[in-house]
Amino acid sequence: MALRFRSLLAAPLLRSPQIPSSSLRGRLQQFSTSHSCASLADLREPAAPSVVTAIPGPTHKALFDDLNQIQVAAVNLFADYEKSIGNYLVDVDGNTFLDVFTQISSIPIGYNHPDVLKAVADPKNAAIFANRPALGMFPGGEWPHLLRSVLLSVAPRGLTEVTTMACGTCSIENALKCAMIQYRNKQRGTTTPDPEDMKSCMVNEPPGSPQLSILSFHGAFHGRTFGALSCTHSKPIHKVDIPAFQWPIANYPRYKYPLASNQRDNAAEDERCLAQIEDILTSLKGTKKEVAGILVEPIQSEGGDHHGSPKFLQGLRDITTKHGVGLIVDEVQTGGGVTGTMWCIDQLNLSTPPDLLTFSKKMLTGGFYNTHAFRPNGTFRIFNTWMGDPGKLVLLRAVLDVIKRDNVLENVRKVGKKFVSGLTELENHFPTKVNSARGRGFLCAINFSSAELCCKAHAALLKKGIHVGMCGEVTLRFRPTLIFDEHHLEILLHHLHATVSEL
Amino acid sequence: MALRFRSLLAAPLLRSPQIPSSSLRGRLQQFSTSHSCASLADLREPAAPSVVTAIPGPTHKALFDDLNQIQVAAVNLFADYEKSIGNYLVDVDGNTFLDVFTQISSIPIGYNHPDVLKAVADPKNAAIFANRPALGMFPGGEWPHLLRSVLLSVAPRGLTEVTTMACGTCSIENALKCAMIQYRNKQRGTTTPDPEDMKSCMVNEPPGSPQLSILSFHGAFHGRTFGALSCTHSKPIHKVDIPAFQWPIANYPRYKYPLASNQRDNAAEDERCLAQIEDILTSLKGTKKEVAGILVEPIQSEGGDHHGSPKFLQGLRDITTKHGVGLIVDEVQTGGGVTGTMWCIDQLNLSTPPDLLTFSKKMLTGGFYNTHAFRPNGTFRIFNTWMGDPGKLVLLRAVLDVIKRDNVLENVRKVGKKFVSGLTELENHFPTKVNSARGRGFLCAINFSSAELCCKAHAALLKKGIHVGMCGEVTLRFRPTLIFDEHHLEILLHHLHATVSEL
Repeated sequence: MALRFRSLLAAPLLRSPQIPSSSLRGRLQQFSTSHSCASLADLREPAAPSVVTAIPGPTHKALFDDLNQIQVAAVNLFADYEKSIGNYLVDVDGNTFLDVFTQISSIPIGYNHPDVLKAVADPKNAAIFANRPALGMFPGGEWPHLLRSVLLSVAPRGLTEVTTMACGTCSIENALKCAMIQYRNKQRGTTTPDPEDMKSCMVNEPPGSPQLSILSFHGAFHGRTFGALSCTHSKPIHKVDIPAFQWPIANYPRYKYPLASNQRDNAAEDERCLAQIEDILTSLKGTKKEVAGILVEPIQSEGGDHHGSPKFLQGLRDITTKHGVGLIVDEVQTGGGVTGTMWCIDQLNLSTPPDLLTFSKKMLTGGFYNTHAFRPNGTFRIFNTWMGDPGKLVLLRAVLDVIKRDNVLENVRKVGKKFVSGLTELENHFPTKVNSARGRGFLCAINFSSAELCCKAHAALLKKGIHVGMCGEVTLRFRPTLIFDEHHLEILLHHLHATVSEL
Repeated sequence: MALRFRSLLAAPLLRSPQIPSSSLRGRLQQFSTSHSCASLADLREPAAPSVVTAIPGPTHKALFDDLNQIQVAAVNLFADYEKSIGNYLVDVDGNTFLDVFTQISSIPIGYNHPDVLKAVADPKNAAIFANRPALGMFPGGEWPHLLRSVLLSVAPRGLTEVTTMACGTCSIENALKCAMIQYRNKQRGTTTPDPEDMKSCMVNEPPGSPQLSILSFHGAFHGRTFGALSCTHSKPIHKVDIPAFQWPIANYPRYKYPLASNQRDNAAEDERCLAQIEDILTSLKGTKKEVAGILVEPIQSEGGDHHGSPKFLQGLRDITTKHGVGLIVDEVQTGGGVTGTMWCIDQLNLSTPPDLLTFSKKMLTGGFYNTHAFRPNGTFRIFNTWMGDPGKLVLLRAVLDVIKRDNVLENVRKVGKKFVSGLTELENHFPTKVNSARGRGFLCAINFSSAELCCKAHAALLKKGIHVGMCGEVTLRFRPTLIFDEHHLEILLHHLHATVSEL
């Protein structure tokens, strides 16, 4: 592919984008009367990214100043969502970016996908969008069917129950609560809290508010509310000045790449981490920090795209089973098809399914799956006013239909392999600048030799019309849509090659 | 009004509902081409509630059993949101309820309001509904204007900044974080955390994860994630088996009703509570539980509709100012117009505005307002992937336009007065069964002499086609839409009178 890089370098890629002259409304009209398969051709994407102003541009700057009067603005760019299409994000200054970050990995099948627009425009869905119910008490009559036909149709093996939430963080918080409830039931030997529990919890005292803990991992990111944040250890900016539960933290494996030539070291790393986890569980048994559950990402994403090997995650499942501790797998970032299967754990061959699995982002709604054993006993123990939003399931139904109809996950697996190959080739070209190319499906990343180089590469790519993300300290993370195809990959690799070469 | 009760009792109220034969889609079409004011007549509500099956009905039961296989079902009724209209909620069995609970107080201007349906159907909004952005980093170009023209147009006096969140609980959690950040800045004398803060927070240890607290109140409800839950003290079912921060809890006033004949006792109650709060602040100064902020509802809603007097809340503002502690007013349930003004604090005449004010429910989006002084320094300190949902602001814009155009809050104030009078009259008729009639605008409630009677009344009303809520132990809470008018009130009071009379 190196040769192709060079030939592409000569090509006039930074031309004007071929945004169709018809407005979004025009497209909407077109698709609302058609039933055609939404191939990439249908999307009428521009042929290539196009940067026509400084980044950020003048319209962005004016909007930024305005927003900054209202709140602490952290905006990277103001987008034009009417003009954005497929894999291309258009900003308010008319710049067109190949989007390989996709709203922090939360846009599953591209901007303004015709099937999603159809779901939005369908009058049959109007009542669902207009009347948000308190789902836990007064769902629409279609709700059980929506849960079954949408969320349960893609449930991880063995997880037969599902509860929706508004976002990933709330999903984490409530999954932690399920693990706590289950653990306390086991400790007590009954699912009925005793009067002392009921009384003491009202004033935040044990035994009703038990001094149990959740074990999490260095480098983990699970969200920013007080419970989720106590399990998050990726960057100080997430945590500083906020009180936290003093819960235990274990090491998550840090592998050497390429994996193939470091098998022995990496296996030892798995063993080291698993041994430490078991030590923690044992040493905290009977203390104020006794561990009720372990919260883990199959790939630590925000923390730097640290992959857990199948062996590590299998070991974790076995340890949690042995010690009677809940295993909560956080697939907020790894779920929804990005790894080439609906869930990352589909590829990990655990001895038994995890007890709870949280999702959000590409799933459009937050929520968690659980085994029947981890169902909280009693109504209203896991509850809030909205309990998610049925409108999001209507959109997700359209997304999942496309994923099935268009064999989208096959695309992720096929193009994903080439993605990692391309990154590996880049690493081989520039071994002093980049390393540790890795990926599962489209969840791909590469490290830079320093944080400074990584930031420079990110900025340089943006100026070329390529929008990627960063994570950890030295990592570029790639999070394309699931309909990112070989020609998008070629454009990305071309600019990546040029950028690293210029560093 | 007692006479009117009796005459209404003879009327054949339980007739079939006058649901228009045209479907929702028909109505949608009709309104999408008209610009007429959405008077109640336009809504074509049924004339009265109508119960045609047992409650719950057979369709409900089948759906309940289905849902209960997927999750712990706590459903009161499955609704038909296509058929529900204005103040009337229709269930899947064809029963039509006058809805005086409105999805836990979260439906502002009734079901399928034509202006909300118009916003849903408007192709101009399609891109906003179809492409949910990571608002903190990549909002649409319209976002600053939406924030200004929608949320800031109804901001509480003195609160010039606003941040959106997905739900009420996340709004609370992030407002608590703002208070913590502000307090730590003051403690340190700088807005820059020092290296020891940055390092220790990563492992949940002080000083980076400080041992500060939030003072909350017995009877309070603020949500169910770990931080919000540590401030919630309404019912054990919310809290039991979940670890909590051992933060201090103060008494919230419990008044004697009628207020007019218990002024001296109630003033003493205010003084007692305020003195206790000041004692707690003083005694915890310099300890591991030092108070960084006080979180308070102007009316404790879930906890039993306990009103805080203007004097109590003024006192609380003055104490927090004196002690340099953040004041966070939780208007998740009291905001959005239900008290007759946009915010309950608009009626309380505080010496200075609160530092932070949280909202959700009737506002359709979660979020918080803050003073400029409580802006968190630095980007990404208050952040998550979605940061709310711009689609909800599009709907809220339609709601606020109706509120302004139709003088809806004037309706709340006018009918609200009659509401409290009607409840007071009920209390005077049945002093051994009900007491403590109270309300501000439409946030009305009445107590029963026992929890058992309260539950009985709730169930009996439902069988009559009247849907109200419960809170605390002995309280019926009324949460009508803002377009609940005198004839709805008459129907409610009629059935309430009949129900209490039969108990």
